[in-house]
Amino acid sequence: MKTLTLRKPDDLHLHLRQGDVMGEYARESARSFARGLVMPNTLPPVCDPAGMLKYKKEIEKEAPGFEALMAFKLLPGMDPGIVAEMKKAGALIGKLYPAGATTNAEDGISSYRQIRDVLAAMEEEGMVLSIHGEHPEAPVLEREISYLKELKDIIRDFPKLKIVLEHLSCSESIAFLESCPGHVAGTVTTHHLLYTLDDLMGGALKPHLFCKPVVKREEDRKALVDAVCSGHPRLFYGSDSAPHPRASKEGGSCGAGAFTSPAALPLLAELFEKEGALDRLEDFVSRIGAEFYGLPLNSGTLTLKKENWTVPGEIGGAVPLAAGETLSWRVAES
Amino acid sequence: MKTLTLRKPDDLHLHLRQGDVMGEYARESARSFARGLVMPNTLPPVCDPAGMLKYKKEIEKEAPGFEALMAFKLLPGMDPGIVAEMKKAGALIGKLYPAGATTNAEDGISSYRQIRDVLAAMEEEGMVLSIHGEHPEAPVLEREISYLKELKDIIRDFPKLKIVLEHLSCSESIAFLESCPGHVAGTVTTHHLLYTLDDLMGGALKPHLFCKPVVKREEDRKALVDAVCSGHPRLFYGSDSAPHPRASKEGGSCGAGAFTSPAALPLLAELFEKEGALDRLEDFVSRIGAEFYGLPLNSGTLTLKKENWTVPGEIGGAVPLAAGETLSWRVAES
Repeated sequence: MKTLTLRKPDDLHLHLRQGDVMGEYARESARSFARGLVMPNTLPPVCDPAGMLKYKKEIEKEAPGFEALMAFKLLPGMDPGIVAEMKKAGALIGKLYPAGATTNAEDGISSYRQIRDVLAAMEEEGMVLSIHGEHPEAPVLEREISYLKELKDIIRDFPKLKIVLEHLSCSESIAFLESCPGHVAGTVTTHHLLYTLDDLMGGALKPHLFCKPVVKREEDRKALVDAVCSGHPRLFYGSDSAPHPRASKEGGSCGAGAFTSPAALPLLAELFEKEGALDRLEDFVSRIGAEFYGLPLNSGTLTLKKENWTVPGEIGGAVPLAAGETLSWRVAES
Repeated sequence: MKTLTLRKPDDLHLHLRQGDVMGEYARESARSFARGLVMPNTLPPVCDPAGMLKYKKEIEKEAPGFEALMAFKLLPGMDPGIVAEMKKAGALIGKLYPAGATTNAEDGISSYRQIRDVLAAMEEEGMVLSIHGEHPEAPVLEREISYLKELKDIIRDFPKLKIVLEHLSCSESIAFLESCPGHVAGTVTTHHLLYTLDDLMGGALKPHLFCKPVVKREEDRKALVDAVCSGHPRLFYGSDSAPHPRASKEGGSCGAGAFTSPAALPLLAELFEKEGALDRLEDFVSRIGAEFYGLPLNSGTLTLKKENWTVPGEIGGAVPLAAGETLSWRVAES
């Protein structure tokens, strides 16, 4: 049987939620990933050392062997002194959510000018700024493009600040990244590599494919696939896996987020194989991101088997991406 | 109290479904409309005189005083002789669904060339061709624009055929209609006049606003509003009201269709009032369409009161447009 063994991957953009379900989501990530960079848009948000360390401890207790890389949420009015404290406590990134851009982002940032001194402190401390780059006031399909102006200004004003542009969704963003200095990188999700608006709403409407940024046109998907499968040195994997309780996705008003961790590696292997780029998969999921963050590469491995696998219909009360579909690769149990 | 009394409106594009729920939907339409042009995409489809007359009788029995104007579905391989029979039985239109374009359209038409002789018979008989103008193979947001080429060819090949372009959704279609001869007209729905992609998925995803054609950009909505509120002589109202059982709209895979009849007139009154065009509403809903079809104008009236009204949460198992919202106009009980 055909197998593919990779250095164990990292998921550099992950939502694990809180409470009873968190453990199941964390263990699900641990099946495929050695580490996950856990997003701080919890309620209340992760925004101080004690809260962050408590959350990290809870996650790692639930999923032994899985390392939770931690993030804190940038909030209006934040004291710039927090940056050194968060760094000392082990935070890898400060995350900027434009106000209203996505789940639990009502308390986000209207303009980076609101947190200029915090960003200056991050630049000084060498801490990475991670951005959900959408302008929430723009039409939904133009929000990412509309945010590029703000990104240019941030890059200009903080010329040494390391920046990650999260979950890139359109061809213009790939072109923009080319124009950025080498300390600016981007993450790409599974779903933006696989789906378009036609999958979301070309036939029936599929709430489980609904996320922010919204999946875009085929030419956008293709630009992402081409960049990633050609081994772009500043694009790495961040799933943005975002489990919602089934009732929050299947109703009259459906939250944004796709629960992608469970099927991520099988789906990515299918895609990279189809693109004739299976040999690039390891760089995308296991090397480029770790190197950008200055993390040691993982020493363990993950084996995928070329074997049919049907994605479970529900995990921890949430419906995973590709639920019920039979994929041609599976993660070997370790 | 402010009131608005109109000649009783017609809904010239309406889905009433079948079975137990049909009566409730028909009575709901009867509250606001004297007549409804009932779409034939039932299972099995309405495509012969006996089936059509049976459906008409069922509807009018359930909703006394409401006149069901009837349609038949154009199917590949149909005998052109059917046209004269359907006309004799009272059919107002033959409806062309491109294969796969919407609910129950799997048996639709791939190209008008498949039914050339049927269209010739319709032209000969003076029967109106009504078209769901979307090219199902095109990207979802470009399907209507992509169908314009086919429309041009139909208009060229059947120069006397009366045609209605249904549920126009984008500015390009309004411009296209301008270029068409006077026997080509269009319908506009409530939801395409009121909503955009930002309403559908700018915040949470709203399956009850999901329809085909999908609502588009603000510039498209504005083009429709401007055309209708300026009294365009070849644009008239067809709700495309399409009730689905709640479970078909609130799940992992949501059918296309917005159940718009219950709140249609209050919503339209709000819109026309805001646009300073309340005096144009009657033409749009009660005159232009009837004249295009050569129907007598309705003799009854409908009164709207400027009074708060909360749209019911569910009617006949389906969730109406604007469910739970409080509108500033209501239909006076007659």
